[in-house]
Amino acid sequence: LKVFALNSNLALAEEIAKEIGIDLGKSAVKTFSDGEVQINIEESIRGCDVYVIQSTSEPVNNHIMELLIMIDALKRASAKTINLVIPYFGYARQDRKARAREPITAKLVADLIQKAGATRVISIDLHAPQAQGFFNIPVDPVTAVPIISDYLAEKNLEDIVVVSPDHGSVSRARQLADLLKAPIAIIDRRGPRENASSINIVGDIKGKTTIIIDDIIDTGRRITSASKALIENGAKEVYACTTHPVLSGLALSNVQNAPIKELIVTNSIELSEEKRIDKITQLTVAPVVAEAI
Amino acid sequence: LKVFALNSNLALAEEIAKEIGIDLGKSAVKTFSDGEVQINIEESIRGCDVYVIQSTSEPVNNHIMELLIMIDALKRASAKTINLVIPYFGYARQDRKARAREPITAKLVADLIQKAGATRVISIDLHAPQAQGFFNIPVDPVTAVPIISDYLAEKNLEDIVVVSPDHGSVSRARQLADLLKAPIAIIDRRGPRENASSINIVGDIKGKTTIIIDDIIDTGRRITSASKALIENGAKEVYACTTHPVLSGLALSNVQNAPIKELIVTNSIELSEEKRIDKITQLTVAPVVAEAI
Ligand SMILES: Nc1ncnc2c1ncn2[C@@H]1O[C@H](COP(=O)(O)O)[C@@H](O)[C@H]1O
Ligand SMILES: Nc1ncnc2c1ncn2[C@@H]1O[C@H](COP(=O)(O)O)[C@@H](O)[C@H]1O
Repeated sequence: LKVFALNSNLALAEEIAKEIGIDLGKSAVKTFSDGEVQINIEESIRGCDVYVIQSTSEPVNNHIMELLIMIDALKRASAKTINLVIPYFGYARQDRKARAREPITAKLVADLIQKAGATRVISIDLHAPQAQGFFNIPVDPVTAVPIISDYLAEKNLEDIVVVSPDHGSVSRARQLADLLKAPIAIIDRRGPRENASSINIVGDIKGKTTIIIDDIIDTGRRITSASKALIENGAKEVYACTTHPVLSGLALSNVQNAPIKELIVTNSIELSEEKRIDKITQLTVAPVVAEAI
Repeated sequence: LKVFALNSNLALAEEIAKEIGIDLGKSAVKTFSDGEVQINIEESIRGCDVYVIQSTSEPVNNHIMELLIMIDALKRASAKTINLVIPYFGYARQDRKARAREPITAKLVADLIQKAGATRVISIDLHAPQAQGFFNIPVDPVTAVPIISDYLAEKNLEDIVVVSPDHGSVSRARQLADLLKAPIAIIDRRGPRENASSINIVGDIKGKTTIIIDDIIDTGRRITSASKALIENGAKEVYACTTHPVLSGLALSNVQNAPIKELIVTNSIELSEEKRIDKITQLTVAPVVAEAI
């Protein structure tokens, strides 16, 4: 068994290797002066079960190409199995034709990964469970919800309600609510995401500590409007939990200005220095990934 | 027949469409705030023969992903055939395992393109003709050598010799020499590329106007050292011709400082403003591409 890291998530890869009790495999990812990626694997992997850790987070196209080139190199070096750990799976939201003549990029990426030669995929809290069906190889879905639940449980919060930010995310909220033995509420939206006033809340949140759970926080507009609506409707306070901290565009200022007490995320995506603010707590997924390996 | 442009080479795509006598197809390539590419085709292409113009030049990974996503969108919109015009094919130099455990990225990219759904590829002066065999779909090799030859012929240069920058490029030099009815010479290298003094020249170049021809000028070290060696060995002057102006790293200053009278390239790669210097002449490949379509 060998574990290799690419460029997206070196710190997490180190942690995972440590959990398993091995050193990371030796490989070099360089860039030629024209921007072309060059990969060399610097130890024999013939006949080995190889794991590659890479989130396809921003810069997403570079991270995808790095991953595909690595798979090609491993295949040509006679790896026995090529197992991808993709903590955050980019392009996962483009998983259906919402309009005519649109691509389904999530399926395309799944095809590319398989064509390159991957034999198994481990990913954390995939945007939609249907994406497992985009692959003809085993996909092991790992969830960070128990990690988030453990962290919240230690806070001994009282009178809590778990809130789903829309109808599509109820099962995730249900899962967290079960672990915390709490009731759920649902945000019922009838307008654009950023609009808190067009929000209706199904469930009792008056005077309660509310916990929103979602898979991705990208620009943060959804969570910002949800948290405002909760406070306007009498919630005592709002915690927000998301597995994947994409945090693009105006996300940081949205989070800073939102009535959110704490934003809890994981290290499925590495946070750059300026994103490590007091309001954000980052939990590690290394133990659950190591277990899945 | 419909022709679509992506982001690498809009000006060339416009020219090609004009040569054919049609308007470019309507499509939108946008980027979400997290860097993910979104493509929408804005007119029906059901049952059409579709051509997509895209060089996989720098930023190469973005240009490849754009191309793959476009192919996916066209396929799902029921295009009859999906024909790619890839004037410059990035990663073409990674076409063999030079060391153990290296990928063969040129073959990987060929596989990705086919998996996405392309049915035919047109490319100009592929780095190695063997790369045609990386595809199981038709590959139409187009050459820019006659365009370069026509341009040189108009100069009425006297006493010319066509120079191959290494042993691997002799057939390209032979082709140009035949068109210009000139003899050839070959640069015989026994050291690193940047070193002019380890160069031996096979053929008579004393007092002659020499014309180096290569497929790619990247950092320009190869052409710089070749031109120095030619002048040191008594050539009268040096012209350099390459189809693909990659021009990365220190290329511009290398070209400026080299004893090259003129560098002749094509628009297979769009030149940014700062690369449009007096010493560089850019010829258009639009007519030969339009003919191949
Ligand atoms: N990278 C992205 N950033 C923002 N929106 C996206 C992105 N990818 C897909 N979408 C849009 O998000 C929607 C899907 O999200 P969801 O409804 O939560 O599954 C679709 O309308 C997509 O067009
Ligand atoms: N993008 C690139 N920039 C510079 N060198 C490259 C690039 N891609 C491949 N190479 C190297 O160029 C050599 C192949 O070039 P050639 O011998 O001209 O076919 C190999 O040694 C490659 O490692």
